[in-house]
Amino acid sequence: MRKYTNFIFITLFLLGISQLSNAQTNNWTEVAPGVWKTVIGSPDKLDLLNTAGIRPSLDALSKMGNEEFPVNKNNIVTNVTNGKTYLRFPLVKDEQIFGFGLNFKTVHQRGKILQLHVDHYGGSDNGRTHAPVPFYVSDKGYGVFINSARYLTVYAGTAVRKDSPDAPEPLDRNTSKNWSSQPYSDAVEILVPAAGVEVYIFAGPTALDAVRRYNLFSGGGCLPPRWGLGFTQRVPTLYTSKQVEEEAKLFSDRGFPLDFIGLEPGWQSKSYPCTLEWDKSRYPDPAAFVRTMKEMGIRLNLWTNPYISPASSMYSRLLPYTGTHTVWGGVVPDLTIPEAQKIILAQIDKDQVSIGISGYKIDECDGYDRWLWPDVARFPSENSAEQLRQTYGLILQKITTELYHNKNLRTYGLVRASNGGGSSFPYVIYNDYYSHEDFITALINSGFSGVLWTPEVRGSKTSEEWLRRMQTVIFSPMAMINAWSSGTKPWSFPDVEKEVKEYALLRMQLIPYIYSEFAKYHFEGTPPFRGMNLEEGFDTGTKQELKNGDLNDNPYAEAVMKEIKDQYMTGEYLLVAPLFTGQTTRKVVLPAGKWYDFYTGKFAGEGEIISVTPGLDKIPVYVKDGGIIPMMPAMLHAPAAGEKFNLEIRYYGTRPGEYKLYDDDGETFDYEKGIYSWREINVAPDKKGRFKGTISKAEKGKPDNVGVVTWRFMSVE
Amino acid sequence: MRKYTNFIFITLFLLGISQLSNAQTNNWTEVAPGVWKTVIGSPDKLDLLNTAGIRPSLDALSKMGNEEFPVNKNNIVTNVTNGKTYLRFPLVKDEQIFGFGLNFKTVHQRGKILQLHVDHYGGSDNGRTHAPVPFYVSDKGYGVFINSARYLTVYAGTAVRKDSPDAPEPLDRNTSKNWSSQPYSDAVEILVPAAGVEVYIFAGPTALDAVRRYNLFSGGGCLPPRWGLGFTQRVPTLYTSKQVEEEAKLFSDRGFPLDFIGLEPGWQSKSYPCTLEWDKSRYPDPAAFVRTMKEMGIRLNLWTNPYISPASSMYSRLLPYTGTHTVWGGVVPDLTIPEAQKIILAQIDKDQVSIGISGYKIDECDGYDRWLWPDVARFPSENSAEQLRQTYGLILQKITTELYHNKNLRTYGLVRASNGGGSSFPYVIYNDYYSHEDFITALINSGFSGVLWTPEVRGSKTSEEWLRRMQTVIFSPMAMINAWSSGTKPWSFPDVEKEVKEYALLRMQLIPYIYSEFAKYHFEGTPPFRGMNLEEGFDTGTKQELKNGDLNDNPYAEAVMKEIKDQYMTGEYLLVAPLFTGQTTRKVVLPAGKWYDFYTGKFAGEGEIISVTPGLDKIPVYVKDGGIIPMMPAMLHAPAAGEKFNLEIRYYGTRPGEYKLYDDDGETFDYEKGIYSWREINVAPDKKGRFKGTISKAEKGKPDNVGVVTWRFMSVE
Repeated sequence: MRKYTNFIFITLFLLGISQLSNAQTNNWTEVAPGVWKTVIGSPDKLDLLNTAGIRPSLDALSKMGNEEFPVNKNNIVTNVTNGKTYLRFPLVKDEQIFGFGLNFKTVHQRGKILQLHVDHYGGSDNGRTHAPVPFYVSDKGYGVFINSARYLTVYAGTAVRKDSPDAPEPLDRNTSKNWSSQPYSDAVEILVPAAGVEVYIFAGPTALDAVRRYNLFSGGGCLPPRWGLGFTQRVPTLYTSKQVEEEAKLFSDRGFPLDFIGLEPGWQSKSYPCTLEWDKSRYPDPAAFVRTMKEMGIRLNLWTNPYISPASSMYSRLLPYTGTHTVWGGVVPDLTIPEAQKIILAQIDKDQVSIGISGYKIDECDGYDRWLWPDVARFPSENSAEQLRQTYGLILQKITTELYHNKNLRTYGLVRASNGGGSSFPYVIYNDYYSHEDFITALINSGFSGVLWTPEVRGSKTSEEWLRRMQTVIFSPMAMINAWSSGTKPWSFPDVEKEVKEYALLRMQLIPYIYSEFAKYHFEGTPPFRGMNLEEGFDTGTKQELKNGDLNDNPYAEAVMKEIKDQYMTGEYLLVAPLFTGQTTRKVVLPAGKWYDFYTGKFAGEGEIISVTPGLDKIPVYVKDGGIIPMMPAMLHAPAAGEKFNLEIRYYGTRPGEYKLYDDDGETFDYEKGIYSWREINVAPDKKGRFKGTISKAEKGKPDNVGVVTWRFMSVE
Repeated sequence: MRKYTNFIFITLFLLGISQLSNAQTNNWTEVAPGVWKTVIGSPDKLDLLNTAGIRPSLDALSKMGNEEFPVNKNNIVTNVTNGKTYLRFPLVKDEQIFGFGLNFKTVHQRGKILQLHVDHYGGSDNGRTHAPVPFYVSDKGYGVFINSARYLTVYAGTAVRKDSPDAPEPLDRNTSKNWSSQPYSDAVEILVPAAGVEVYIFAGPTALDAVRRYNLFSGGGCLPPRWGLGFTQRVPTLYTSKQVEEEAKLFSDRGFPLDFIGLEPGWQSKSYPCTLEWDKSRYPDPAAFVRTMKEMGIRLNLWTNPYISPASSMYSRLLPYTGTHTVWGGVVPDLTIPEAQKIILAQIDKDQVSIGISGYKIDECDGYDRWLWPDVARFPSENSAEQLRQTYGLILQKITTELYHNKNLRTYGLVRASNGGGSSFPYVIYNDYYSHEDFITALINSGFSGVLWTPEVRGSKTSEEWLRRMQTVIFSPMAMINAWSSGTKPWSFPDVEKEVKEYALLRMQLIPYIYSEFAKYHFEGTPPFRGMNLEEGFDTGTKQELKNGDLNDNPYAEAVMKEIKDQYMTGEYLLVAPLFTGQTTRKVVLPAGKWYDFYTGKFAGEGEIISVTPGLDKIPVYVKDGGIIPMMPAMLHAPAAGEKFNLEIRYYGTRPGEYKLYDDDGETFDYEKGIYSWREINVAPDKKGRFKGTISKAEKGKPDNVGVVTWRFMSVE
């Protein structure tokens, strides 16, 4: 030891101290308008963006226009030492940051220490979650993405450097009342356990713009099939095809909407590990079963996990492409190897996709450590267990999406793990955790990270909880009842059956609006479900109030200084403010500008906190001044390709409004060939001050599924 | 991506699969009798053993004799890939393992996943703890040590390999009732995030022997000064020298034993960060103060943390040898650099040690992440932040121990962080956590890992809790009341003052026994406080019962199959079975052989579970058949160097007994020059069957502090 320390003691003067000087990173390349990239050291061959196989939407990014590099380059500092990469990005005094993936309890990320690690969510926001996306966005209007498939350690404004110009004076804890265990920190610092990494910066000018650029760079947000926005029910594990048909009939008999049903492990001959083959006792004739269901207007989604049983016909072919360790006795395909992908895709295509299965629920690709392959597992590709863990869900989404894409059919499924670059994959994340409040916070955080999340409804202890959960799931990417173990039905709580049905039908009425918002996710990068911090009026509000921050005079200031994690935006115009079991009253923070009650059109407030007591049968929803909400009749299934539907166009408020309604066949990828239409809806007062609405025709030869249009001027009736 | 995956797809056949074949590690060197070492890849220059600067006790190891290599070498598999080292060690079917440092809730480690990381204990045994020692011991009679200062990820019998001969058949979860989410695993697998590592194997034949070899290889367990085994009180933070003198007087007035007092941050001119200089307002004349206290028979221990304030006279000299980041505004010395060590040691020597301060309480060298330097911090030595985090407490123990050693004075202090190789350092670990039950489990686990732990007493909600905690702290390495914030005194609960005093005095009476047991820790490696799993009778019991494991016939079998974490051994003969607040009755597992009540000498049972209801005033303690407990009068201070004390030698049971009594000056390191004595105590029945005791004389010229010897035959009175 002494000999060694003497050695380093000498080297200290030869190179030691000099080595501590950091390298500023100035070699940024603008890879798309408002998107810059730098390469530090020698990055891993396998990273998130090449795993996701992103195809940036360059046209859309060009439409967003050019921006200055949004951060002071001299304050971005990087260093590669002993095979590890050190990154530092500046923070200013009143800056707040959002993102780092699917967190469940917090929206503000400044002050957090995270180790980004794909895993089941374990109850605390420590970086272990289903989608630990290494992307954050600042309210100063820029985003930062670390393109690494490693476990990244993130110090999001917690560490203080000797050389920091803002380093606070040390205080004496013996005597100072102001002493704090957490002195002010002026940087986000990240440790990448690899000898290099790619970093991307996304310009604003607003935080929402930075998120939009990130999504567009990742290929644009996914556009689900129209049927994917309808209702879905997942049936008990060991249901037979006969029971599933009866379940579907029950829904239509009772007049409840239903677009697709999810089959759980029992559809497979063996599960945990899986065969990916039908169980012929429960499903004697899968093709006929799928046809029958389709005739009832119901598609089918299949649960699976990716660990393959020795009983599967694929097993021996797959074996050479599997890792050293097993999961529940199943082999773990090295999905970074194309041959492994091909073998699995061939099986599900032959057996399921080709007979009309509409999609998958890809389970158990996230964690726990004690279930999945350990970090000591090794794989034929030589990619590390860590890299496989961080990308497994991403790869499974990519290859299944491609399988459907090659058939020019859209899919819409569920997945437990995702990561950076996955915005374009038509998968919604779910988990076993079941806190209603935290489910809404996750929905908010999903919008910062290019992923989708469903606050699914499973069982409930009370009819109050059942209705409250149902009221939020319809304002989410997937309106799902996940009854695989409970067997619950929408009408399982008779005293609220009527209200539940009302909201289920409202979901169906909203499809034209929600579908258009998903189209904006795809074509413009705007997340359809997102937090208030991305809402411009809200943000401005904050700043104004914080300037003269007397919290007695400005309760609003206090509210926005606290993080808002229980209300969110659905699309361009709707502000959704859920109530949770036990609540009868809640506060709602209304951003700058006028807001109107969705149900009555009445003025609700502007740039202020209101308190509401809506009753159990209502979830508070507010519409922005000038808001236009296109709605269709309460059908039990989403319109099929080419099926006409009438529109009721609702208008709210007092200022002229406009809306872009999206339309296409709703099922194929023809929109990639330009076969879609955007129709302009405008509402303005005429000379006499009477509101008039107009809707443009679809261009000649472009999709037009709109039948009769009626108008409702909600705020002037 | 496609181009790349094609590439790896091809390489797969060129080298991919072949690379997955693991390397057996057969090049083991026997570095001491029963201790083997292997070097895998290129280990880091900085590791635990060279940091601790161990000097193996080769003589003692030779006395233990030679053993066969205790594990099947062919089942130890290692591999270095892409800068990481993969280790695998075999487990057999009924094997149990212990250790991995200072865990608080579990004794059995098989089935755990841990990431060994020095940190405050956070409430779950996940590897983050004050002493995450990478050493485990098997009940098959061997130990494994990974000599790495990295964050090691340990899969202790959780991962299952494709090629495992014991891999269980996969089951179909759809239909099998026996399906388990955790299939049987046959190995401990460890990921070392470095391109190589040293591994050590320690032979038995018993688990205790493996622990002894580990401790002896680390230099032997620490031998505290005799006064260190007396009572200690820590006073409120801002106490002045005057108040400390009054506190000492209070103890002697009330007849409570006291050997040293701990001063908290207020002794320093500034703390958090620290100056390591006296505060002259509270301590105007430190030297005089230390003298006064010494005259009262009281030594002083000083709290500190290692983060240096700009207000310290050391600051500018230290600055070049500090890391990039600060802790509470203090600089972080790079303690792997000798110059940094020298500057700090010079200051505490000049200011404190040279005037008679007896030791330190080294705080905040463990965690939290949000307090200490981040993993992105860098240090002039080029050692990583990770390596500094894993070794900081170890280095602080080493350099302060050396400072005292150079003065031929023993110290005995407190520390919050330790690691492998630290057995010989005279420091006891403590923390802020305060679960009485978990404190006892930690005491048990400390014995597997070459560290000491104190179940300190702070405050209590009730006098019951106060007395119960006091009853356990006296059967621990440091009998401490830590009243820095509460100001509690031993007599703060009047209704139990008498009982508390009784136990405080019992601690003093036990010093000859406890001191001899610490000598065995030093000279023979046997931990003075240890779990039942290291007790031979207990272990044998287990095996026998488990063979015919009908739990109805053998509740004992169930008890030992369940982990026993609420009773422990104190030295060779005493079994301590604490009760906790709310308990009036408890079960005690008595290992094979006869056991006797410590207080009455009555037979208690043998190789069975007994149920006891001792009353609040008693902690159940049992003595092994033939047990000999040398006790001294209930003095208020431990005997000073050369001070004679009388002995009452208690004998328990019915079979001949023997004991080795250790003696030396109790304060210096002269024992390293052979200036100590072992005296043989024997008890056997004479021809008439009457028990007679004999004690050998100390060799000529060797220490002999024993005055009058009296005998008590506890079981035959």
